[in-house]
Amino acid sequence: MNKINGLIAAPFTPMDSRGEVVFEKIPDYVRLLENNKVVGAFVNGSTGEGVSLSQKEKMQITEEWVKAASEKKELKIINLIGGTSYKECIENAKHSEECGADAIAMLAPYYFKPGSGGQLAEFCAKVAEAVPTVPFYFYHIPVLSGCFVSMYDFLQEASGMIPNLAGIKYTHEDFMDFLTCIHFADGKYDMLWGRDENLLSALVLGARGGVGSTFNYAAPLYYQLIDAFDNGDLEKARKLQQQSIDMIRLLGKYGGIATGKAYMRYIGFECGEFRLPVKNMSNEAYKQFEKDVEALQIQELFSTL
Amino acid sequence: MNKINGLIAAPFTPMDSRGEVVFEKIPDYVRLLENNKVVGAFVNGSTGEGVSLSQKEKMQITEEWVKAASEKKELKIINLIGGTSYKECIENAKHSEECGADAIAMLAPYYFKPGSGGQLAEFCAKVAEAVPTVPFYFYHIPVLSGCFVSMYDFLQEASGMIPNLAGIKYTHEDFMDFLTCIHFADGKYDMLWGRDENLLSALVLGARGGVGSTFNYAAPLYYQLIDAFDNGDLEKARKLQQQSIDMIRLLGKYGGIATGKAYMRYIGFECGEFRLPVKNMSNEAYKQFEKDVEALQIQELFSTL
Amino acid sequence: MNKINGLIAAPFTPMDSRGEVVFEKIPDYVRLLENNKVVGAFVNGSTGEGVSLSQKEKMQITEEWVKAASEKKELKIINLIGGTSYKECIENAKHSEECGADAIAMLAPYYFKPGSGGQLAEFCAKVAEAVPTVPFYFYHIPVLSGCFVSMYDFLQEASGMIPNLAGIKYTHEDFMDFLTCIHFADGKYDMLWGRDENLLSALVLGARGGVGSTFNYAAPLYYQLIDAFDNGDLEKARKLQQQSIDMIRLLGKYGGIATGKAYMRYIGFECGEFRLPVKNMSNEAYKQFEKDVEALQIQELFSTL
Amino acid sequence: MNKINGLIAAPFTPMDSRGEVVFEKIPDYVRLLENNKVVGAFVNGSTGEGVSLSQKEKMQITEEWVKAASEKKELKIINLIGGTSYKECIENAKHSEECGADAIAMLAPYYFKPGSGGQLAEFCAKVAEAVPTVPFYFYHIPVLSGCFVSMYDFLQEASGMIPNLAGIKYTHEDFMDFLTCIHFADGKYDMLWGRDENLLSALVLGARGGVGSTFNYAAPLYYQLIDAFDNGDLEKARKLQQQSIDMIRLLGKYGGIATGKAYMRYIGFECGEFRLPVKNMSNEAYKQFEKDVEALQIQELFSTL
Repeated sequence: MNKINGLIAAPFTPMDSRGEVVFEKIPDYVRLLENNKVVGAFVNGSTGEGVSLSQKEKMQITEEWVKAASEKKELKIINLIGGTSYKECIENAKHSEECGADAIAMLAPYYFKPGSGGQLAEFCAKVAEAVPTVPFYFYHIPVLSGCFVSMYDFLQEASGMIPNLAGIKYTHEDFMDFLTCIHFADGKYDMLWGRDENLLSALVLGARGGVGSTFNYAAPLYYQLIDAFDNGDLEKARKLQQQSIDMIRLLGKYGGIATGKAYMRYIGFECGEFRLPVKNMSNEAYKQFEKDVEALQIQELFSTL
Repeated sequence: MNKINGLIAAPFTPMDSRGEVVFEKIPDYVRLLENNKVVGAFVNGSTGEGVSLSQKEKMQITEEWVKAASEKKELKIINLIGGTSYKECIENAKHSEECGADAIAMLAPYYFKPGSGGQLAEFCAKVAEAVPTVPFYFYHIPVLSGCFVSMYDFLQEASGMIPNLAGIKYTHEDFMDFLTCIHFADGKYDMLWGRDENLLSALVLGARGGVGSTFNYAAPLYYQLIDAFDNGDLEKARKLQQQSIDMIRLLGKYGGIATGKAYMRYIGFECGEFRLPVKNMSNEAYKQFEKDVEALQIQELFSTL
Repeated sequence: MNKINGLIAAPFTPMDSRGEVVFEKIPDYVRLLENNKVVGAFVNGSTGEGVSLSQKEKMQITEEWVKAASEKKELKIINLIGGTSYKECIENAKHSEECGADAIAMLAPYYFKPGSGGQLAEFCAKVAEAVPTVPFYFYHIPVLSGCFVSMYDFLQEASGMIPNLAGIKYTHEDFMDFLTCIHFADGKYDMLWGRDENLLSALVLGARGGVGSTFNYAAPLYYQLIDAFDNGDLEKARKLQQQSIDMIRLLGKYGGIATGKAYMRYIGFECGEFRLPVKNMSNEAYKQFEKDVEALQIQELFSTL
Repeated sequence: MNKINGLIAAPFTPMDSRGEVVFEKIPDYVRLLENNKVVGAFVNGSTGEGVSLSQKEKMQITEEWVKAASEKKELKIINLIGGTSYKECIENAKHSEECGADAIAMLAPYYFKPGSGGQLAEFCAKVAEAVPTVPFYFYHIPVLSGCFVSMYDFLQEASGMIPNLAGIKYTHEDFMDFLTCIHFADGKYDMLWGRDENLLSALVLGARGGVGSTFNYAAPLYYQLIDAFDNGDLEKARKLQQQSIDMIRLLGKYGGIATGKAYMRYIGFECGEFRLPVKNMSNEAYKQFEKDVEALQIQELFSTL
């Protein structure tokens, strides 16, 4: 698989009022992303509540995304397969392969945390070797997984152990480590930046693709940012990055990840609520949130249906 | 269910050389525990590698333990049901009920971490209410789960929301919080101490039961410790606690949780290795470990087959 | 110096409304402690705001405590000398010796944090050897110092390097480490417990002395607790420990360490406010605090003037 | 004071073999920095071991730097004044003013850590108002100070309370916070980047000045990096940033901050060792270090005497 150039959204999982997955919404979701030039979907990830779903639900979600995306073949599907149990990860990896996902991704085990690059690579290799022709991404998000092994340490071990290693979704603010991974093995690995709020600081290091949750509803903002950067208009790029930050700061104000689904409602693509244990926004809070979003004056930077 | 008085082991999951579960060893395991007066088994827990097993494996393990234990009815089975997905926890909880486990236990979700007692209680309630007649324990182990909500905060919310709440397996060194939970609601809840290395400091606060991994192989040590404490022989109790500490310190020296299975081999009950990502001891390291164990001179305090 | 048996208060530093030290109050403070059978004062510690004082102020405080205490010779003075700069620690250590303090104590350096027992011991030795006949205590409080080296690791190195090492003020909840230090070198070192809220769990391990801030205003509570424990009346000991916890929980509710000076005002020994950066209680908050203290119904357990 | 454009070194404190400060080396140090176009010196900082010096030593160091720098008036002197005690910070601030330092800087109190922007600002204001005409920088380095308050939260409070607030030395990898501070109050504050290993990611956000320890010995590397960035030659800028990273990675390999003085020895400007508690490199380790530095093949990027 070639490196990915552009924005990859980490989709929310649409739920109904009882907290059940609304699989039928997925084709529309694919169109929403395609309409806004998003080039990939990282499904069953943190934003997609992978850890809150059952194995069966995750599999059906993958199927639906792959099926809906394959109509136009414009959207690559990367499927997050877990996890803490390599048994279930392998089950999931094989299913991903069967239904035709473009790539799989794997988290560091987030209960028993590996303490070295070698241990982490060994765990990943156990799964990757079960689907040797499927591109394999590692998903680095220490703030949630609790595994703080550096990706440079990981690559030094994994490059020899995992032939189908494609790259890393890098959701952590260690730019020293990130740049070293970009340069590793003559730039062999696809380093996807995972912190939307400082994409600009990754672009300058050579990142060309990003995976994020705010690309679900504000893809135009980031494509304008990338264009401005590519054209050397740094003033504009910084202003857009600040607008992205102001937008993201509302996530903190309204309690975290669940605010993402409020943004989806705001742009008109209802995804329901997050499952427990994630805390959702009350209706009153949503009204205040809506006012705060209006005040940002970034309407033209949101994705359009 | 009455409060539990005595030692509850958190069993290892016996594995063969390919890392597959050896279910047939479970009846012998039950006998090992019963022979050493252990009163309960906390299965599929941290020690049992619950997070490294598939849902299906966990269910079969529960079945085998319940079946083997019910012959003599001396060993209570508490089944750890997860987890991060309440869907899978409920599935597991219902299966526990069907096959006759004495109680279930649940971890704090360890990916999206609840930030308050109320959020944590809400998550637990969602599962507990699916099996309203099964005693429900919360398993507090923040060092692994990453959820540092105090149990006093949890009980204040959970006591009203979870009628079948039985108690807490408390694996954390906050004795202020622990004593407050012992006294909560006139001592209604069963507070099981989960740090073998300082059981004595919990006994003095009124703890009567403990759940631990070292009770698998050194139950006599702890029963002597409890007896000494009950008889007011604090010199002896302290000496035994120090012997427990010296034994536990070898876990640190040899790399952590996997050392527990080395102790099992030492007493003659082979359980194989831990699954990845847990790091196992090499054969050379085992030889050195064996010498270190001999040097402790605590042979008569180990469990006997 | 013999081991210390009983309660050692960590005194507050009396301040006036401009935040200046009121040295003249120290003789009365000595009497307050003596009247309540407190056997030592750990001056210039965390409670005493040592880090917020100038070197000159600390020296004068030491002088006043030593002078006032020496009238009756009932109260031992342990002086916390720092710190991050061994130069200033040595200056302070020599001054302590000159004015006749009974012992000195030293914190782990809390900016550049030692990463091993050896490094920590070397730093302490550099200071201790400047006053070779003065008993030297190490003050272990990782939650504030950020140095999490275990005291067993420290003792293994320090015992050979610091001939005047007397013991450790242990303000951390690692009872495994604490018990090992009690047993170290046949019980040579004076292990002073520093967490008032779980003194009972330390007594059962053999602790005979404690250093704490709540001993300033609630010494009777803890002496009754120790008596109950010594007499085997564990029900009573637990109840008293719970009362101590309820009292200490108000520190959390009202914002932390500054609440200690509110308790001093409550018993009638005004010490003013803490210096910045510690946040003090407003007058309205104090009124609410007073009600909360009344509601604890532990009036007879407070120290009396 | 105008914003600073260019590299500000955080000088090491030259020591002799007994660990005493060699004040006489400071004029040569000034010349070393000037020769390599360094525009400022941030003295008594982390690199300068401010916390390991006595108040008197710090004052003399300030005097020597100001005196030596004022000959050519090319090097601005920013003096780090502390600290945990505002009394001693004020003493130091007034002394800085008297001897003619261009600006002062202050750390967050690193024992009692402020928990909000308001508390931190109040503490800083107490010191800043004692020298109302001296430009005041806040030094943000949470990994050492333990104060993780965001600088955006700090500026919102401090901007109204500290008229002489000039800016922030920002040594932390929160680029979202950093960009927001750059944009705060129409770009009023001087935001000096403090992580040499990712200077490029800060330049793209608009940073124009940096404070760092590696500018002591590798200023040419960073000036070439800045030039490449300004000229739009990002390939070259990334390569230079990678060379900086490779150089900095040796600090980790050889045990941390003390490795900086080894680099100084390497370029021929001997500064002795760090004081305890910092661990120094053995002579054997230095020989290996020298080989590792040679292997980097970046000789022409080091500062020249």
